[in-house]
Amino acid sequence: MLRIVQCVPNFSEGRDLNKVEEIVSVLKNKKGFNLVSYEPDKDYNRTVVTLLGDPEAIIDALIPFTDKVLHLIDMNYQTGEHARMGAIDVIPFIPIQGVNMDECIVYANKVAKLINDQFDIPIFMYAEAANKKTRVKLPNIRKGEFEGMKEKIKEEKWSPDYGKPEIHPTFGVIGVGARIPLVAYNIDLDTDNTKRTGAIARAIRFSSGGFRHIQAGPVLLESRGHTQVTMNILNYKKNPLYRVLETVKMEASRYHINVPSCELVGLIPKEALLKTIKYYFQVEGKEFNENMSLEEITKYSIEYIGFRDFDKYKIIEANIN
Amino acid sequence: MLRIVQCVPNFSEGRDLNKVEEIVSVLKNKKGFNLVSYEPDKDYNRTVVTLLGDPEAIIDALIPFTDKVLHLIDMNYQTGEHARMGAIDVIPFIPIQGVNMDECIVYANKVAKLINDQFDIPIFMYAEAANKKTRVKLPNIRKGEFEGMKEKIKEEKWSPDYGKPEIHPTFGVIGVGARIPLVAYNIDLDTDNTKRTGAIARAIRFSSGGFRHIQAGPVLLESRGHTQVTMNILNYKKNPLYRVLETVKMEASRYHINVPSCELVGLIPKEALLKTIKYYFQVEGKEFNENMSLEEITKYSIEYIGFRDFDKYKIIEANIN
Repeated sequence: MLRIVQCVPNFSEGRDLNKVEEIVSVLKNKKGFNLVSYEPDKDYNRTVVTLLGDPEAIIDALIPFTDKVLHLIDMNYQTGEHARMGAIDVIPFIPIQGVNMDECIVYANKVAKLINDQFDIPIFMYAEAANKKTRVKLPNIRKGEFEGMKEKIKEEKWSPDYGKPEIHPTFGVIGVGARIPLVAYNIDLDTDNTKRTGAIARAIRFSSGGFRHIQAGPVLLESRGHTQVTMNILNYKKNPLYRVLETVKMEASRYHINVPSCELVGLIPKEALLKTIKYYFQVEGKEFNENMSLEEITKYSIEYIGFRDFDKYKIIEANIN
Repeated sequence: MLRIVQCVPNFSEGRDLNKVEEIVSVLKNKKGFNLVSYEPDKDYNRTVVTLLGDPEAIIDALIPFTDKVLHLIDMNYQTGEHARMGAIDVIPFIPIQGVNMDECIVYANKVAKLINDQFDIPIFMYAEAANKKTRVKLPNIRKGEFEGMKEKIKEEKWSPDYGKPEIHPTFGVIGVGARIPLVAYNIDLDTDNTKRTGAIARAIRFSSGGFRHIQAGPVLLESRGHTQVTMNILNYKKNPLYRVLETVKMEASRYHINVPSCELVGLIPKEALLKTIKYYFQVEGKEFNENMSLEEITKYSIEYIGFRDFDKYKIIEANIN
């Protein structure tokens, strides 16, 4: 079996599409892995890159990628809706096939050391690759963002896992991690009221008393003229999409706000969609077939979950040959 | 202002109503506090007693109460649906008026010492009164129940807070605690399928990935011929009733199970009901008045939440003169 990991570097440019193209160019047409997608977002001013393939090939490519980002992004001039602490903000490794979590932790440390050695950018290890309990959750590390990190990194307890306790002056720092597939799921709300969207996000997110594996917050998408509840589902088995979506609808109904659509950032495992399609089939009393094709999964996901900008290749399994 | 606490001892007899009456008789018509209610449950084989009033008066009455229970209940012959580790299983103190949490912790320790000194029953301090992190959550202490406690209490880490590491041979042990008002809320399901009810409970409870402040499980009420999701809402401000109820309905709908009614065990703060009534008013676009009377709160609680066996005196504030 081929050894396959997913790697999802996020970098802090989503507006200047020439720069985005130049950065991702070093990831195109490489041997050993696919550049599955790159999704620049104007409001977030951030691009999520999804790579799938051989872990060593991906690690090799991340060095010229970091070099490009270093030369094209200066965090002192970067603003956007998404929290960020570096020009490349995070690099997570996710086991997909023939690779286990422990191996992903080894790969994460390997690339962290390489990047630090070569570019003198401090690295924090997070999620399954964290060396301290306080660093398991990325938001803990990132709190204060690029601007706050200048001082924070000097505190003993926030000393980086690789590198000196001093941010790179234009790049900042990177979080490198290993984790199970995370679903980056955003639910659109037919309102521009960020306060109400925030109240809805608090109902579902763990930090405010909500579901255990949900990180969520409100964001105003100025270019689209509405807000969304933006979230990470850290465990889609225990917090399936339908449950979060229906709870958001329930909360939105008190404000008479509609939920017209939603979107994924990056990829999603087939199993996560099947779990949710099954729920709606059961509600409607329809017979459910676990072995439906990726095309059927795509169709029903759009129909029941209301995805926009969605196609088969959003499903991890559609990208593995 | 009068100093008022709520104290909710739970004892392990809910079937032999003569015994129940004899036990609660020592709490009736006492000076300084009210016996607000006592609710024997056949399936649980347990009675929840609610006392409201002066903390010192309540502490004084808990001594003859313990004496009665000691003489009437032998845990070696007790069975029921509810987990339990003692003939009196728990004694929580809840600050209501003119008393803060720290004072409730002092009261809890006072009664714990008195009971242990007089009857040689080991006591575990829990919730806000816990002396160890592992004892904050009652289910951690109670795991293994009366039967398992015989050995568990001998482990150093489960040594009781008061008394010798040896259960009382017929009484077992007691958990004495202090906490904010907890809502003991049960949602009836129109099914006798405990497995499906368990799946629904797992969707909402924290330990399985659900809402942060919910403890829940399935129970079959044989005498009523249906199951319920039985739960403790540990923080009704962050996990309001409507959200839990609507999520249970959402999950039940996949199995085409109806949610005909629900019930409270013990009392509920007015604020908890207002939060939930407000949600349904907003959904229906009705004007909401924070200052509605207790009678109106009662009426709308029955109408929107679907309480059975509910009246005004289920609301804490209706019992304070």
